Amino acid sequence: MLRTHNCGALRLEQVGKEVTLSGWVQRTRNLGGMTFVDLRDRYGITQLAFNMDTNVDLCSQARKLGREFVIQVTGKVIERASKNNNIPTGDIEIEVSNLNILNAAKLPPFTIEDETDGGDDLRMQYRYLDIRRNPVRENLMLRHRMSTETRKYLDSQDFVEVETPYLIKSTPEGARDFIVPSRMNEGQFYALPQSPQTFKQLLMVGGMDKYYQIVKCFRDEDLRADRQPEFTQIDCEMAFVEQEDILNTFEGLTRHLLKEIKGLEINDFPRMTYDDAMRLYGSDKPDIRFEMTFVELNEVTQQNNFIIFDNAELVVGICAKDCADFTRKQLDKLIDFVKRPQIGAKGLVYCKYNPDGTFKSSVDKFFSQEDLAQWAMKMSAKPGDLMLIMAGEISKVRKQLNELRLEVAEQLGLRDPKKFAPLWVVDFPLLEWDEETERYHAMHHPFTSPKAEDLDKLDTDPGAVRANAYDLVLNGSEIGGGSIRIHDKELQRLMFQHLGFTEEEAQAQFGFLMNAFEYGAPPHGGIAFGFDRLCSLFGGQESIRDFIAFPKNNSGRDVMIDAPAIIDNAQLDELNIRLK
Amino acid sequence: MLRTHNCGALRLEQVGKEVTLSGWVQRTRNLGGMTFVDLRDRYGITQLAFNMDTNVDLCSQARKLGREFVIQVTGKVIERASKNNNIPTGDIEIEVSNLNILNAAKLPPFTIEDETDGGDDLRMQYRYLDIRRNPVRENLMLRHRMSTETRKYLDSQDFVEVETPYLIKSTPEGARDFIVPSRMNEGQFYALPQSPQTFKQLLMVGGMDKYYQIVKCFRDEDLRADRQPEFTQIDCEMAFVEQEDILNTFEGLTRHLLKEIKGLEINDFPRMTYDDAMRLYGSDKPDIRFEMTFVELNEVTQQNNFIIFDNAELVVGICAKDCADFTRKQLDKLIDFVKRPQIGAKGLVYCKYNPDGTFKSSVDKFFSQEDLAQWAMKMSAKPGDLMLIMAGEISKVRKQLNELRLEVAEQLGLRDPKKFAPLWVVDFPLLEWDEETERYHAMHHPFTSPKAEDLDKLDTDPGAVRANAYDLVLNGSEIGGGSIRIHDKELQRLMFQHLGFTEEEAQAQFGFLMNAFEYGAPPHGGIAFGFDRLCSLFGGQESIRDFIAFPKNNSGRDVMIDAPAIIDNAQLDELNIRLK
Repeated sequence: MLRTHNCGALRLEQVGKEVTLSGWVQRTRNLGGMTFVDLRDRYGITQLAFNMDTNVDLCSQARKLGREFVIQVTGKVIERASKNNNIPTGDIEIEVSNLNILNAAKLPPFTIEDETDGGDDLRMQYRYLDIRRNPVRENLMLRHRMSTETRKYLDSQDFVEVETPYLIKSTPEGARDFIVPSRMNEGQFYALPQSPQTFKQLLMVGGMDKYYQIVKCFRDEDLRADRQPEFTQIDCEMAFVEQEDILNTFEGLTRHLLKEIKGLEINDFPRMTYDDAMRLYGSDKPDIRFEMTFVELNEVTQQNNFIIFDNAELVVGICAKDCADFTRKQLDKLIDFVKRPQIGAKGLVYCKYNPDGTFKSSVDKFFSQEDLAQWAMKMSAKPGDLMLIMAGEISKVRKQLNELRLEVAEQLGLRDPKKFAPLWVVDFPLLEWDEETERYHAMHHPFTSPKAEDLDKLDTDPGAVRANAYDLVLNGSEIGGGSIRIHDKELQRLMFQHLGFTEEEAQAQFGFLMNAFEYGAPPHGGIAFGFDRLCSLFGGQESIRDFIAFPKNNSGRDVMIDAPAIIDNAQLDELNIRLK
Repeated sequence: MLRTHNCGALRLEQVGKEVTLSGWVQRTRNLGGMTFVDLRDRYGITQLAFNMDTNVDLCSQARKLGREFVIQVTGKVIERASKNNNIPTGDIEIEVSNLNILNAAKLPPFTIEDETDGGDDLRMQYRYLDIRRNPVRENLMLRHRMSTETRKYLDSQDFVEVETPYLIKSTPEGARDFIVPSRMNEGQFYALPQSPQTFKQLLMVGGMDKYYQIVKCFRDEDLRADRQPEFTQIDCEMAFVEQEDILNTFEGLTRHLLKEIKGLEINDFPRMTYDDAMRLYGSDKPDIRFEMTFVELNEVTQQNNFIIFDNAELVVGICAKDCADFTRKQLDKLIDFVKRPQIGAKGLVYCKYNPDGTFKSSVDKFFSQEDLAQWAMKMSAKPGDLMLIMAGEISKVRKQLNELRLEVAEQLGLRDPKKFAPLWVVDFPLLEWDEETERYHAMHHPFTSPKAEDLDKLDTDPGAVRANAYDLVLNGSEIGGGSIRIHDKELQRLMFQHLGFTEEEAQAQFGFLMNAFEYGAPPHGGIAFGFDRLCSLFGGQESIRDFIAFPKNNSGRDVMIDAPAIIDNAQLDELNIRLK
């Protein structure tokens, strides 16, 4: 080793010892006769001391060290005159007797500090420098600890990690596949997996009983902010289980992670049906760190000739506690917020419940104080609260009010990244109507089982059939989703039929799975966690990008290595393809 | 859960308890009034008992159960009349009171037994059934334990697992890449990584200090037996290290695995230079579980007008202990063996050192008893031994004699899969001459550093330059290989130049790495283990295929899911490519 200790290791106990350290020059300070260098590595920072009086050559050399130079020093550990209590090595410094420049460095394009002056684009281009910064490195190390603890828990529960293939078969169902031309099989293509779904089901047929894998998955979708073409899943499957068993097992995983990583004991994993989530939060991933649930107000708002309410399918509001003192400006900002094209509402009605018991609303022309008092009663509003009400078509207005609820909570500081509130959303619909293709799609995927008691509605009212499907929501983000699968060939055939597959299409794409179901498939189900998102939530951040070592930008490019790129025609020739 | 216990859990202590089990019907035996069913899952086998006298209906139902039916039973644990000491649950059986068929099964296309009647093709097509067999399942579970113990060791040494991207950039150097068309970047392609080499080096530049990853890699090569287009590596890199540090760290890993997985304490990791390995074993991956090292015989064989020896660049032999009693037939088989086209030798000279002290050779016409005695002395042969000698051009004859050595050892039972003999091969050449392209290629890869003391030969005698490169060999298989990397931009530029890259090519393909080297790259090095091979060696088997859940065949096909496959023209259109 080019060191005897790392830069985070030395303490007072080592005083007097001769040591060798290697690392990067964080900064150099010249104080008259002394020069101090902060030497940095992954483990910490150690101060190096050079004395102009005792060693002119060495000290002069030290003064020429640039930021991020890689150096190796040998010297004696001594107690510092003025200690630094902010770092674990702050009691000591190294009286350097030998300095060796291992590699010089150009001035970095941004500062290697916790708060950097580098913008996102520059940081991504020089990601190898960005990773030297504590916050980014700590994110990556958090990710490592998350995967370690995940494995530890799942191993303790008898799960076996099995690697499934990356070169598989393209299936038109679901998102768009990345494909890989096969040179040895002319005119044929592999696809990269969107998830190991069918393989993990085959492992259940194969008797593996409990499977998991922390695995990369791929989706060639247009990238919205914070989506990556390659992403990581904690992928799990169990045999001989019912929904309750999966929920318990993976509550256990989440509890284990919260305890080991965040030091939090969280025992409350409430369950909410999809219908309730939509009704009370306008979202299938409610943030329940705070209340402000929806209250439906049709009954008390639709008899006053206020046409916007009268014509609405749904009038629905939230009560913002202690916000009656919002200024006109603050209220206008909220109105502007819901009118943004991403949200698309026409407006917002507010009603202040003043501390003196009076009401002041934006619709005072239409509603009397008694009317407004009724609203307040319905919404359990107290003097000092602010009621915010929207109206329109059910599914749209719910989405809009959900956005408003989150925005208000954000402004009120209710979305505390240090607080963790998990929630199971259950009883998802099996199918959802797709306007574009004018047919039903599987809401989860085609292998999800319908609830037995709803099976008879599959023909008469397909949209009303509920699935044995569940999502685990954490702080308003879906962190995991899964289902009890179909394990019966006939039911699987029926599902494909309802999803508009012909018998031939179903056979061509999923014949292997349906065949497998004929040879003794056990009842089984599973779940997959979005690992990038899980890490960012545990790291208390919104964006997943800084929890991925080398992420891609919104055009799917790695700007550091400049990929994708054009390739040789010879390479295309070998693969029997050409550009269009 | 559809069970209270698994099929491996119950013992005498549970006698009297009512339990529910689920699993597969291994077999059914009707013995007059009783019917016994062996119920199987991942954890074991439990005997179910059905009594025709006490419950006719249930017993009749049980008699109709086919092999591999999935059933659930409830009943009481009772002590067996005739115990079975071969299985952990052999003291008890279940007196079944309720039987529920969870899924029927067609007769499997091969028997689900340790020794199956299914051929390789059938087993691969129905891999999900093959995995139910104990030997295959145990291989996959061994693999899981191997990865768990690998992580445990590396974590204990402060390594951090970092995920590197799968969608990267194609580089013509090395093996052929699999490529992935980019829809969002028209006419451009990603490549799947052959290894995370450049990324792990960038992580070292980024200060991660110690990196590892158990990761899939991809090579689009013509598949020789036992090669897979996707394979798994234990990929590692360390900063501020010298070769000795890497060897020590990964000896430690190998020792840990041998201890935890095989219960073996192996402390001897001898080191051998590449030159010695070639000279003594004719291979850079010698199997040192047995001796039979090469002895060069030019001196004692080239003065008797035996033209084959006289014209040979090298005459070299091995001494097979106690094999003087080989029959004419056995010797002919060895001669046929070396003449096989894969080996390509013209012949083989043998010389028996008879127990009575006389010699009998295939070249008695040319060599006297005294001549042959000289051979024997040189080869330290004893009466009863058999000398096998080959001659020809150095590199060819070494390869051929290596094959013969392994074959003889195989015949003599010296290649014991239960014995483990690791070996470091060091000081590999930096470059190797490629006849086809008539230029030097990097023997390891272009990022491997030359030995400082050989640098001056880079211009005058490139083939003689040794690298800081090393392989870890286990029982004649290379299980890991790595090097100390170049961390200096100028040296890297020089290497590319010697490998025939123009300045522009080097910049276009590896500019990001050379740029990174300008911002403070630490000295670093690493190693990668072939995880599939490592598992198969620990499992005591030759083929890696049964240590991979869903392997591909020699045409790169997954015969179970039937991939690769043709895809829609619409999909090609979107990707802006077409078939040639």
